[in-house]
Amino acid sequence: MAEFRVTPWEVEGEVDYEKLLLQFGADPIPEGIIEELPKPVLLPLKRGYFYAHRDFDKFVEDWKEEKKISVVTGRGPSGPMHLGHILPFYAARWFQEKMGAFVLIPISDDEKYLVRKERKVSEVERFARENLVDILAVGFDPERTRIVIDFEDTYLYKPAVIVAKRVTFSTMKAVFGLTNESNVGWVFYPAVQMVHLFLPQLLLGPHRVLVPVAVDQDPYIRVARDVAEKVGLVKTAGLLSKFMPSLESPFGKMSTSGGVEQKVIWLTDDKETVRRKIMKYAFSGGAPTVEEHRKYGGKPEIDVSFLYLLYFFEEDDRKIREIEESYRSGEMLTGELKAYAAEKIASFLEEHQMRRSKVLDAGPEEKLSEYRLNEEEKRAVLEWGKDL
Amino acid sequence: MAEFRVTPWEVEGEVDYEKLLLQFGADPIPEGIIEELPKPVLLPLKRGYFYAHRDFDKFVEDWKEEKKISVVTGRGPSGPMHLGHILPFYAARWFQEKMGAFVLIPISDDEKYLVRKERKVSEVERFARENLVDILAVGFDPERTRIVIDFEDTYLYKPAVIVAKRVTFSTMKAVFGLTNESNVGWVFYPAVQMVHLFLPQLLLGPHRVLVPVAVDQDPYIRVARDVAEKVGLVKTAGLLSKFMPSLESPFGKMSTSGGVEQKVIWLTDDKETVRRKIMKYAFSGGAPTVEEHRKYGGKPEIDVSFLYLLYFFEEDDRKIREIEESYRSGEMLTGELKAYAAEKIASFLEEHQMRRSKVLDAGPEEKLSEYRLNEEEKRAVLEWGKDL
Repeated sequence: MAEFRVTPWEVEGEVDYEKLLLQFGADPIPEGIIEELPKPVLLPLKRGYFYAHRDFDKFVEDWKEEKKISVVTGRGPSGPMHLGHILPFYAARWFQEKMGAFVLIPISDDEKYLVRKERKVSEVERFARENLVDILAVGFDPERTRIVIDFEDTYLYKPAVIVAKRVTFSTMKAVFGLTNESNVGWVFYPAVQMVHLFLPQLLLGPHRVLVPVAVDQDPYIRVARDVAEKVGLVKTAGLLSKFMPSLESPFGKMSTSGGVEQKVIWLTDDKETVRRKIMKYAFSGGAPTVEEHRKYGGKPEIDVSFLYLLYFFEEDDRKIREIEESYRSGEMLTGELKAYAAEKIASFLEEHQMRRSKVLDAGPEEKLSEYRLNEEEKRAVLEWGKDL
Repeated sequence: MAEFRVTPWEVEGEVDYEKLLLQFGADPIPEGIIEELPKPVLLPLKRGYFYAHRDFDKFVEDWKEEKKISVVTGRGPSGPMHLGHILPFYAARWFQEKMGAFVLIPISDDEKYLVRKERKVSEVERFARENLVDILAVGFDPERTRIVIDFEDTYLYKPAVIVAKRVTFSTMKAVFGLTNESNVGWVFYPAVQMVHLFLPQLLLGPHRVLVPVAVDQDPYIRVARDVAEKVGLVKTAGLLSKFMPSLESPFGKMSTSGGVEQKVIWLTDDKETVRRKIMKYAFSGGAPTVEEHRKYGGKPEIDVSFLYLLYFFEEDDRKIREIEESYRSGEMLTGELKAYAAEKIASFLEEHQMRRSKVLDAGPEEKLSEYRLNEEEKRAVLEWGKDL
């Protein structure tokens, strides 16, 4: 397997997830914990897309004891959203619906502005607004969900300063791969992100907050855990996933970096586009010819269409096993697998797009306003940490 | 002369102001410019306490052409204020009254919190409120003065991010003496301070902003000038002063660092206390005995009481020359000089304290509210830099 490099801002090469776990030092998800969760269990959790954690067991324990729990899932508005961007929000909704979690959604327009040299303020702001339409379409409960936008909810600066006082440049350098040539906004930003992770505790008092993210975001969680204890908060829990496979590679990350359109399924893609992209680009674990496939069989574990079904779109355990066996044996052909996956993905997207239209019809700003912090909540943020 | 070390956070040893100028690379104030200023000229400017500058000539030019001009003078609320803290605000008031400058007063509670390890949020907030009573007592015109408090006016975070994107950690390290062990809030803070210097331009459009500060703050101005051009603003002008001499040394800086009470005249000191402190602690340029003094004379240039009179309290040019000559000749004794200086300082403080009482009677919060940014002004700050 090729060399790979993973930082919170960059994923290069083909990722070996087990190695990554060793590198980051998180734990694999413990046996038996999935069975304790409410049914139907969140698919990517049941099927091993989320494959590592920090204190997820304690989070589940707290839920069983009916303690307050929260989930934080954010978005850096760097452009339009694709399938890999939206699925974490559907995961967060599951935690809200099934486990009663409070959900906090930070929009880090500041980060995207700071990290991308050519980006203008107006651009990240526009992307933030566009992305929010998709996030609102997921259908969070406004009573138990808050959205913050860094460039607008600037009161986050105050707790970020309190957090930042407890993290040195050395730490940022070691953990995030910053250099002396990094701009100082970028150097400070991880403190803002830590505040995102702490925010449910600032609003509702100390309690367990779970952050379901791709494993490349683990450094944030690690530093946040260290700081949490220093500021009287419960250590942040993490649920770490693999990367949403790129269309063209089961090991890559669905990403527009490099602008390669054929890697990505956009949230706006229609049925026909999804079908065309899957048929044309989705990396196949099948043999080169139908004859060889019939003879030697396919490799579902590296077939992107199969992985999409496994992790996200085929709820039926019996059905996914059937597909796996049939494909491995050579009975099911790549074309058939692809057609089936395309159908599932397109129908998920159709539903999402329908909800998206409803948000647009209702007026996104009005809808968004239901999720913003009210004055009392803002005051709570500004009042936090007086004795720190 | 002993070794000395000057950074924006620390002044050690006995300062050689000419060397400092070379070190920082600012220019001495040009001949003839003082004569162009409105009368009576600000005393510390006329008498060389402000001794160096960047673009002060252009600032005066803009004033002559009746262009918009502004002055920024801030306060880091690290404790109660002494004489050395308040005089810059009286200087700013002069620029407002005599030259029509808009005045911006930033209160950097965040900086003091970040730089002083043991400081709690509640402490810097308390000091900020206490200090503001003194600043309000100076008597700025609410129509042409704005006060921002970093921990409250957090919308400054947004322009600070825009500025921060244009400054690397390397630059901060070189200019401010930060290290890898500096906390990342401190690393970011200079961007916030740059926004303070730019704020009049964000509110009123690009124009010349003068920052009259002690020479140790020059690094901020230098970096701000570099950044100003990159973000479409007029380069910040600086008027650089010597340090308010400590009671016990004409070369030191009036400072409570080390907690040495006898260095400092507090704004709350009464007539008797001022007299006692000056008599007891003020470094004297006189000879060791009356006999020797009568014979050899005194050295006004290193006599702290004389320097206070020269730079701040003796408006009468003829009188200050008389004192200088009489003291140098040995005719005027140290005790006489001290008594005269104590009288002048105490009467300045009495007037300040009277105005301070009025602020307290009127209600400091209500008074303060006249100087805060209104919603429209806050919006202007948040709208700035869309295309950057």
